[in-house]
Amino acid sequence: MNRLMLINGPNLNLLGTREPGIYGSHTLADVVAEVKKVTDSFGYELDDFQSNHEGAMVDKIQEAGRTCSGIILNAAAYTHTSIAIRDAIASVPIPVLEVHISNIHTREEFRHHSMLASVCKGQVVGLGIKGYRYAALALLEK
Amino acid sequence: MNRLMLINGPNLNLLGTREPGIYGSHTLADVVAEVKKVTDSFGYELDDFQSNHEGAMVDKIQEAGRTCSGIILNAAAYTHTSIAIRDAIASVPIPVLEVHISNIHTREEFRHHSMLASVCKGQVVGLGIKGYRYAALALLEK
Amino acid sequence: MNRLMLINGPNLNLLGTREPGIYGSHTLADVVAEVKKVTDSFGYELDDFQSNHEGAMVDKIQEAGRTCSGIILNAAAYTHTSIAIRDAIASVPIPVLEVHISNIHTREEFRHHSMLASVCKGQVVGLGIKGYRYAALALLEK
Amino acid sequence: MNRLMLINGPNLNLLGTREPGIYGSHTLADVVAEVKKVTDSFGYELDDFQSNHEGAMVDKIQEAGRTCSGIILNAAAYTHTSIAIRDAIASVPIPVLEVHISNIHTREEFRHHSMLASVCKGQVVGLGIKGYRYAALALLEK
Amino acid sequence: MNRLMLINGPNLNLLGTREPGIYGSHTLADVVAEVKKVTDSFGYELDDFQSNHEGAMVDKIQEAGRTCSGIILNAAAYTHTSIAIRDAIASVPIPVLEVHISNIHTREEFRHHSMLASVCKGQVVGLGIKGYRYAALALLEK
Amino acid sequence: MNRLMLINGPNLNLLGTREPGIYGSHTLADVVAEVKKVTDSFGYELDDFQSNHEGAMVDKIQEAGRTCSGIILNAAAYTHTSIAIRDAIASVPIPVLEVHISNIHTREEFRHHSMLASVCKGQVVGLGIKGYRYAALALLEK
Amino acid sequence: MNRLMLINGPNLNLLGTREPGIYGSHTLADVVAEVKKVTDSFGYELDDFQSNHEGAMVDKIQEAGRTCSGIILNAAAYTHTSIAIRDAIASVPIPVLEVHISNIHTREEFRHHSMLASVCKGQVVGLGIKGYRYAALALLEK
Amino acid sequence: MNRLMLINGPNLNLLGTREPGIYGSHTLADVVAEVKKVTDSFGYELDDFQSNHEGAMVDKIQEAGRTCSGIILNAAAYTHTSIAIRDAIASVPIPVLEVHISNIHTREEFRHHSMLASVCKGQVVGLGIKGYRYAALALLEK
Amino acid sequence: MNRLMLINGPNLNLLGTREPGIYGSHTLADVVAEVKKVTDSFGYELDDFQSNHEGAMVDKIQEAGRTCSGIILNAAAYTHTSIAIRDAIASVPIPVLEVHISNIHTREEFRHHSMLASVCKGQVVGLGIKGYRYAALALLEK
Amino acid sequence: MNRLMLINGPNLNLLGTREPGIYGSHTLADVVAEVKKVTDSFGYELDDFQSNHEGAMVDKIQEAGRTCSGIILNAAAYTHTSIAIRDAIASVPIPVLEVHISNIHTREEFRHHSMLASVCKGQVVGLGIKGYRYAALALLEK
Amino acid sequence: MNRLMLINGPNLNLLGTREPGIYGSHTLADVVAEVKKVTDSFGYELDDFQSNHEGAMVDKIQEAGRTCSGIILNAAAYTHTSIAIRDAIASVPIPVLEVHISNIHTREEFRHHSMLASVCKGQVVGLGIKGYRYAALALLEK
Amino acid sequence: MNRLMLINGPNLNLLGTREPGIYGSHTLADVVAEVKKVTDSFGYELDDFQSNHEGAMVDKIQEAGRTCSGIILNAAAYTHTSIAIRDAIASVPIPVLEVHISNIHTREEFRHHSMLASVCKGQVVGLGIKGYRYAALALLEK
Repeated sequence: MNRLMLINGPNLNLLGTREPGIYGSHTLADVVAEVKKVTDSFGYELDDFQSNHEGAMVDKIQEAGRTCSGIILNAAAYTHTSIAIRDAIASVPIPVLEVHISNIHTREEFRHHSMLASVCKGQVVGLGIKGYRYAALALLEK
Repeated sequence: MNRLMLINGPNLNLLGTREPGIYGSHTLADVVAEVKKVTDSFGYELDDFQSNHEGAMVDKIQEAGRTCSGIILNAAAYTHTSIAIRDAIASVPIPVLEVHISNIHTREEFRHHSMLASVCKGQVVGLGIKGYRYAALALLEK
Repeated sequence: MNRLMLINGPNLNLLGTREPGIYGSHTLADVVAEVKKVTDSFGYELDDFQSNHEGAMVDKIQEAGRTCSGIILNAAAYTHTSIAIRDAIASVPIPVLEVHISNIHTREEFRHHSMLASVCKGQVVGLGIKGYRYAALALLEK
Repeated sequence: MNRLMLINGPNLNLLGTREPGIYGSHTLADVVAEVKKVTDSFGYELDDFQSNHEGAMVDKIQEAGRTCSGIILNAAAYTHTSIAIRDAIASVPIPVLEVHISNIHTREEFRHHSMLASVCKGQVVGLGIKGYRYAALALLEK
Repeated sequence: MNRLMLINGPNLNLLGTREPGIYGSHTLADVVAEVKKVTDSFGYELDDFQSNHEGAMVDKIQEAGRTCSGIILNAAAYTHTSIAIRDAIASVPIPVLEVHISNIHTREEFRHHSMLASVCKGQVVGLGIKGYRYAALALLEK
Repeated sequence: MNRLMLINGPNLNLLGTREPGIYGSHTLADVVAEVKKVTDSFGYELDDFQSNHEGAMVDKIQEAGRTCSGIILNAAAYTHTSIAIRDAIASVPIPVLEVHISNIHTREEFRHHSMLASVCKGQVVGLGIKGYRYAALALLEK
Repeated sequence: MNRLMLINGPNLNLLGTREPGIYGSHTLADVVAEVKKVTDSFGYELDDFQSNHEGAMVDKIQEAGRTCSGIILNAAAYTHTSIAIRDAIASVPIPVLEVHISNIHTREEFRHHSMLASVCKGQVVGLGIKGYRYAALALLEK
Repeated sequence: MNRLMLINGPNLNLLGTREPGIYGSHTLADVVAEVKKVTDSFGYELDDFQSNHEGAMVDKIQEAGRTCSGIILNAAAYTHTSIAIRDAIASVPIPVLEVHISNIHTREEFRHHSMLASVCKGQVVGLGIKGYRYAALALLEK
Repeated sequence: MNRLMLINGPNLNLLGTREPGIYGSHTLADVVAEVKKVTDSFGYELDDFQSNHEGAMVDKIQEAGRTCSGIILNAAAYTHTSIAIRDAIASVPIPVLEVHISNIHTREEFRHHSMLASVCKGQVVGLGIKGYRYAALALLEK
Repeated sequence: MNRLMLINGPNLNLLGTREPGIYGSHTLADVVAEVKKVTDSFGYELDDFQSNHEGAMVDKIQEAGRTCSGIILNAAAYTHTSIAIRDAIASVPIPVLEVHISNIHTREEFRHHSMLASVCKGQVVGLGIKGYRYAALALLEK
Repeated sequence: MNRLMLINGPNLNLLGTREPGIYGSHTLADVVAEVKKVTDSFGYELDDFQSNHEGAMVDKIQEAGRTCSGIILNAAAYTHTSIAIRDAIASVPIPVLEVHISNIHTREEFRHHSMLASVCKGQVVGLGIKGYRYAALALLEK
Repeated sequence: MNRLMLINGPNLNLLGTREPGIYGSHTLADVVAEVKKVTDSFGYELDDFQSNHEGAMVDKIQEAGRTCSGIILNAAAYTHTSIAIRDAIASVPIPVLEVHISNIHTREEFRHHSMLASVCKGQVVGLGIKGYRYAALALLEK
């Protein structure tokens, strides 16, 4: 299973156009390319997926649990409320790393808490799209 | 873009049959007709959409951001919990008005707080289906 | 009783000069004129009243209960703390509509909660001085 | 100073007409008469006062501190929020008894707490207008 | 059923010796005598009961529900925590009046809230042992 | 130890007469008969016990721990506050099932939380006196 | 309408493989078979449905409201957060029973509260897959 | 506008007689004299005002905004609850300094928080009537 | 009164068999023997008492107040909820020391707070049954 | 002991360079000079001390308790969390005045509460470096 | 490692002079002597250390972890806030006993909670300086 | 300023020996070596510092503000409580990255909140000592 899954949550399809003061000008395609450079260098495939639907993210995490060796997850808004995604993460036998492009701790109070953090292996927060790359490295480096 | 979007959230398809003591006997079709009278009088088109799916509402708000000049939104149950819809609203460059048919402040505690209010332009609450009409007027009147 | 009462609370006498970034440049006289256009068109009289005194507002709501068929109320600061005004509203046999010029949900935490909302018929929030007009329409339209 | 002060707060002027399901059909005049029977029987004068104005109640409590030997106080809505009335009570050298006609503990959450209770001598709650009479007795009986 | 029940809760058997600074120097026998004067004057019998046991108080309230026309209850410490006594009160078809000798609102935070208040008819607080007398009057006077 | 214990807490002796709108018209004897039908069909004895005394319930749970193979427990009011009963349940080596006749989640806030739930094996809530039967089945069926 | 609906929520498709220490080794097919035995014995049809999508569950509850006489619902993660499912339950004229396989009260704090409990008829919690069977019995037994 | 406004709130007219253990024996006249010495020395006029009425204090702050170059404000009890006074302060284009004679942080919990502090320029607390003098100096010294 | 009272609360009669991982293998008899060695060495009598009944513990504390010079108290579960025991302790003129065998601060949240601590002289926590001995020494050593 | 102690806490050594938008452009040397002018005019010595170490501040307050007649204290960040400094203040027999350069009530929530306020004599807040001068005056003026 | 460590935290160097009403008249030297009597009698060395610096206490606990077989710790003010000391205790392989001279539960709210209690073996509270002796005994007695 | 600062907080000097189940078997020297590989590859110097003293960490952050171009900070226990370190970070004109070796969100509640996060540029959490490396890369990569 030389394959990683990259999952991005709601409104991240707008990356680059949505609130660039917060999220920067890189697009979702840039994020995928950034991670692909890392997986390529380790001889891994990369599956990528974006959805605005919580249920679709649950479906995809379950699928990755059968086909991949790790998940890079930016659940965006669902980070703070989704027990369904949390349960999906706890249900799969592979590590999940949580990424946030912006520093969620400088934003609204309700973004400071992650429902997912305690079932993920770790978090990379506030490092822009480079954060996805470090997450990929952390999954692949020994 | 002489076009408004009207979005109604979960269980509003049952309007007229669901808890008429709270919501009255008007149907969703009545709501659409009420708003259409206003948009017609201003020479605007009206798109209308109802869904029980949070993700579908996010998709539709994003679409409206590209095709309409304003959104009338009754997010129903998702009003109180959805950060994804909130982020979608904040992501589009057009005004969104929040409507509630019943007075949410006379109901359960968890309905008193709106996750959406602070990213909407305003709220019309408790005025029955007439509330949709005033919201349309507010978007179209100078 | 073809008469409506318009009551504005503390510091609204400064409208147009007070924090125009929040409240806009319209004056209280503009507000009264806006509502008067509506009541005139329905053949109603309009009483208007502004006070910085909570007790005076209670007195006036009681009076309106005997002389008018509806009240448009922007209680301003007292919105968030006054049980006395709430009790006055509950004591009169006529509908009361709550108006706020600015979107109170984008401001300080203590402005998000209204002590009055659950005894009013409804709320119009964040639509500028036009909000008063829609409130008048909602009281007068069948 | 053979004189008691009876002070009733906001909206109690409507007693008998306001929400009779909660407050009963007795009027404020009935309340005064009820207390007067007690003060008469002890050879005391009775001053009575009703106001919807918090500040006027503070003024009157201060006055009673100079002219009376005790105060019977139903502060109504101000019971739950007024530190000013609380401070006035603490400032006068005479006992103050708190009366509530209805049982405030069966009503809204915000009516369960009294800002005044801890500076009053005691409370008579939920006994209808008879409660005023027992308060008068408690001030006058040895 | 010309009979009232007087129930006193835990540690009230020590009245007169326990913390006289708070409770005064009257004994439990004085309390019973005080109430008996009232019931005698109305031609009523008085049952009195004191216990340190929550369950025994529940038993006695149930018994009174079958044999008396009203209950005067000072549940002392159990006032603040006992749902069992609350349920017993709600289960009997007769009025229960809550009495506290001291002003519980000037004492520890945990004494400010009564689990019983909302199922009792009313409360007499802080009037010393005279409070029992007014409670008896309130049950017997028309 | 072919024996089950059925324990009912405070005020359940009034079942059928107490607040029938909430608890229905069945009596405690009906409850015992309902459970006995199940234990009979499995060749088990049934001990049954009702008390208004928290301590007596602790005593009985300890006794059941030595003589029975399971406990059906409706602790009524003590459900929400009793750590002593909780500790007794945790102290016995047999499964305890928690039953509530009414749906406790539609009632007062303080009835929504059970101090006992996390040391019981499970809960049956809101199914009327049938709930006791399913609890017995759950203890006896493989 | 001799038909029941069985609805299972997110991640319950993984039953038997997901965290067997908590949920046991039975699969979702076993659950359906267990309930079918009961509905068969009463001459009822059984519809069963599983989804990871909150909106799809709302759709299905609405459908069941038109085609079935009762719903057995294990909403899994959405139990604790979904107002949309709650509103759907309140909108249908048939009883809904809530089932949880594990004892949710021994798990994380956020699993202790159910948004659905107060609009369901009752709850069966912690009795493993047998719990579904008792729920079916409760819907079908007189 | 070589003029300062000194505003004192409810019950401060009793200064010197009210709870001298907390507030000392100086009178309100002493306070005015103390401040007047400072304004005189800078060639400024001093307006002074005391009221027990929240609305009157709002009126006076608005007036000072037109006639004075700074306000020294001891809002007493209204400090902790008045949004109306807070809004008045925010509405005037001149600096307001908050003074408290006693150290409010050694008193009841509800006196520890000031609704006014964040819209005032600063606070002088616990320095007795000298505090008024330092406030005047702070407004006048460069 | 050369006599100490040792009072143990609910479920401590099971000591040695109940959850030995938490409470160890010593029995209640061992506890009594341990304390008796200390009282013997000081020429004191030891009364010992165990009960699962809150009311019985109140009775016994009152009795000790008349017959002993100090109380060693492990109120077990009642430690965290009993105001009745708290009031009994405050009512007796002799020192009470609180003992807990296990470290209550490593256990459930609700065991971290003691309703009794602030009316006891001190606490010995987590030192196993030796803790009772140190409590006895603290009462008897000068 | 004609000597005052001036203690400044963590990061105040950066005054003038650190966040000048909040703290202004004056340096710590300016603060010392400002206070020294006052102490010189009263014939007092001034000791001044700055440290980023909580323990060093405790040491210095203890020293001042033996050598000075008063302390001017800006504990900066430790203001909000340090019980150790609070205890040191309570341990010394001399008055301590708390100074804050900026208005802490307009900043982050966690800066609104002072652990020190209730053991200090008073507070001067938001008056810039002039605040130190008024604190010195308050300590030295009769 | 026949050696115990005694660590006393901030302001305990002032023992005997600081608030003797709370802490008594014994000095820190008395405390050390009291403990030394116990260690001497068991043939143990005693290291003793006092500091007002949190970091120095962490250093010393780490050192004791390498050189002693147990620690007696009165962390004073740091008891309630220091996670660093808590982590140090959790890092050393030897038992730590927490001592408080006064009964912290009769003092300010913020002194009721100990950050250290759950990683210490036990607590001795409110027994004066004798408490240190019992802690030493508990560490040394089998 | 081709130089980075690496700062580790309290108890991290014990890395490799302290709770290896949580922190792993790598030592602090390993951490420094790991980071040095990165800085070497970019031609940067690395300063490293460890302390158990909050004040020393503040001193060092201030120093780094003058000598380095970025800080990698694992503040350990002080992460959750130190406003002084937070203020130091806000005072320096260079980016600070927060690192935690373990996933703080799977540990005690009080470790879930960081006082520092909102003034740092970002966070790397739960990736073991590799996390330090990614933090260094994030500071140095364009």
